[in-house]
Amino acid sequence: MQINGKHFRTIWVDAENRGKISILDQRQLPHHFVIEHLHCLDDAITAIRDMHVRGAGLIGATAGFGMYLAAINAPENGVDEALEEAASRLNKSRPTARNLGWAVERVLAAVRTVRAGGDKKKQAYQTACEIADEDAAFCKQIGEHGRGLIEAISRKKNGAPVNILTHCNAGWLAFVDYGSATAPIYAARDAGIAVHVWVDETRPWNQGAKLTAWELQQEGIANTLIADNAGGHLMQQGMVDMVIVGSDRTTHTGDVANKIGTYLKALAAHDNHIPFYVALPSSTFDWELAEGAKIPIEQRSGDEILWISGMGHTGKIESVRLAGPGTQALNFSFDITPARLVSALITERGIVQPSRQAIHALFPDKVLSLSHA
Amino acid sequence: MQINGKHFRTIWVDAENRGKISILDQRQLPHHFVIEHLHCLDDAITAIRDMHVRGAGLIGATAGFGMYLAAINAPENGVDEALEEAASRLNKSRPTARNLGWAVERVLAAVRTVRAGGDKKKQAYQTACEIADEDAAFCKQIGEHGRGLIEAISRKKNGAPVNILTHCNAGWLAFVDYGSATAPIYAARDAGIAVHVWVDETRPWNQGAKLTAWELQQEGIANTLIADNAGGHLMQQGMVDMVIVGSDRTTHTGDVANKIGTYLKALAAHDNHIPFYVALPSSTFDWELAEGAKIPIEQRSGDEILWISGMGHTGKIESVRLAGPGTQALNFSFDITPARLVSALITERGIVQPSRQAIHALFPDKVLSLSHA
Repeated sequence: MQINGKHFRTIWVDAENRGKISILDQRQLPHHFVIEHLHCLDDAITAIRDMHVRGAGLIGATAGFGMYLAAINAPENGVDEALEEAASRLNKSRPTARNLGWAVERVLAAVRTVRAGGDKKKQAYQTACEIADEDAAFCKQIGEHGRGLIEAISRKKNGAPVNILTHCNAGWLAFVDYGSATAPIYAARDAGIAVHVWVDETRPWNQGAKLTAWELQQEGIANTLIADNAGGHLMQQGMVDMVIVGSDRTTHTGDVANKIGTYLKALAAHDNHIPFYVALPSSTFDWELAEGAKIPIEQRSGDEILWISGMGHTGKIESVRLAGPGTQALNFSFDITPARLVSALITERGIVQPSRQAIHALFPDKVLSLSHA
Repeated sequence: MQINGKHFRTIWVDAENRGKISILDQRQLPHHFVIEHLHCLDDAITAIRDMHVRGAGLIGATAGFGMYLAAINAPENGVDEALEEAASRLNKSRPTARNLGWAVERVLAAVRTVRAGGDKKKQAYQTACEIADEDAAFCKQIGEHGRGLIEAISRKKNGAPVNILTHCNAGWLAFVDYGSATAPIYAARDAGIAVHVWVDETRPWNQGAKLTAWELQQEGIANTLIADNAGGHLMQQGMVDMVIVGSDRTTHTGDVANKIGTYLKALAAHDNHIPFYVALPSSTFDWELAEGAKIPIEQRSGDEILWISGMGHTGKIESVRLAGPGTQALNFSFDITPARLVSALITERGIVQPSRQAIHALFPDKVLSLSHA
């Protein structure tokens, strides 16, 4: 991703100091572009839990590097114990995010293969880097597969801009590069297809207003911010050609956990015969769960609803309270869109129907170990 | 409605000075309780257009008093011309609000009946007062009819609190008293039925966070503020027993214009087999339109999405910008919920199915003049 002409990933290792992992503090966007450094496991946990980083792939990559930081800060003969403890703590930091547990388990498994006397810290490093590189590569492939869906609509519209609605940020900022929901949009743009994106502001954390609108603007892609409430009306008016969202966890039967409010957009797309796509790398699939209702749904502080921050007239980021002093708020972060409302999933291996049979057929290697599910 | 133990309506005539109409400046709530005075038509238009007052019934009542203010400020022989001009200007101030045109037309028609030499200004006054009084009386009746619906659910739940979701503010603050969607809730409370209200914050203007939560709190009714995105998830989890919303305009065939995002909640209620009620006085019916798609939908400034105001840490109301400097926003204020998604309408004459046949049967006097529709 280019930011003011310079290529960035959302997370990277310092070339001079491998104990220093850099991220963007996404809480400051779009107002300030702040690079933050992670030096230890606690830094990584704080960054994930308090949403300095967020989004399926980036949570996974940060968890991978968090495991690596735990390993390099452990005594030589205490790496295994340090990683077990790190895994347990990281897994609790964001309960719905599937990529988190997947990345943690991948580092653990890789380090387990290191024979006695081998370099476990080096293995943790290599695996964390692999997770990040693979995330970027898979998102790029998601882009290639998804581009065809946009292209087909563009042809039907004789080249008029394809109007794509997205919810939350499943963009470059949610992964290591490219994004999941945005990757097909970037690939379509690269192929010369005219696109316009409706950006749901995505209350309460406002990922759309703060991140997606900024990210698309940096890439020069036409976009318009809307209230989350508006998508249904736009669909009724014929102003939306397709919906593409990401996912924080998808069952191997096709039920999709994604940012709260996704289900409402899926219902509206279905009611208006508009295709509703979910873009995700295979690392987001939960191969253990067959029912979306069993996905744990994170609940965050009600203060995220009662207070909001933005750029004040003084040029500083300020918080204001939206409701009266005694008001209580409840804040679920995700909801489940049942497979019946999903037109198709866009994965790194191709486009697949949201059904157990189709998903298993595309990922036979992932389900081999699933005899108990 | 009691505010700190004192009874208030949302609009009233000064007892000493009939040329002074008082309203609450709802832009300041819940942070400040500010009474504002309207002295002329321009004051009324500003109050309606800039949302010092809002909500179906209150827009109607304010329009009625706006007509009255235009009349008393006109020369004795220029009342008719002044009212014609006032009608034209008021009608343009909020395009979707049906009660506005209805109230304007009612004052015009009443003044037309005054014979030469009669007191047109007195007639305008009486009609404006009638509109306000009738609005309060009709909302009280809506409460009585709707209470039974809540009571039936309460019985099924053996008296456990009935969880009612509402969108926007169709409360006391949206009418002259009681509210439409809230009237059944107040009536149920008065009858000793346990209720709890899920309050949609209602972006972008945040009527739920600012007005409904405050209003329910003043009345001692248990309520919890949620992001607009959350309603679908709560319904999937069995945490919502019924939905009651208001309406800004309803066709005589049962299609409902209400605050943007209402349609999404109606879809979710339908998908989860939860009853979805719309409460409205007959003044909100459009007896000319048979198709919801023909209701004009107001579009307001995108700044209502890009900027937000609340109570700052300094104790002053402050505005902050949510998105980056170059972001564009589109802001439709209402959407249409088709009759097929509405369980029933709650009117001052009783509960009615959202169909032409049922609505015409309940309001034969209103449709008599409708041979052309």
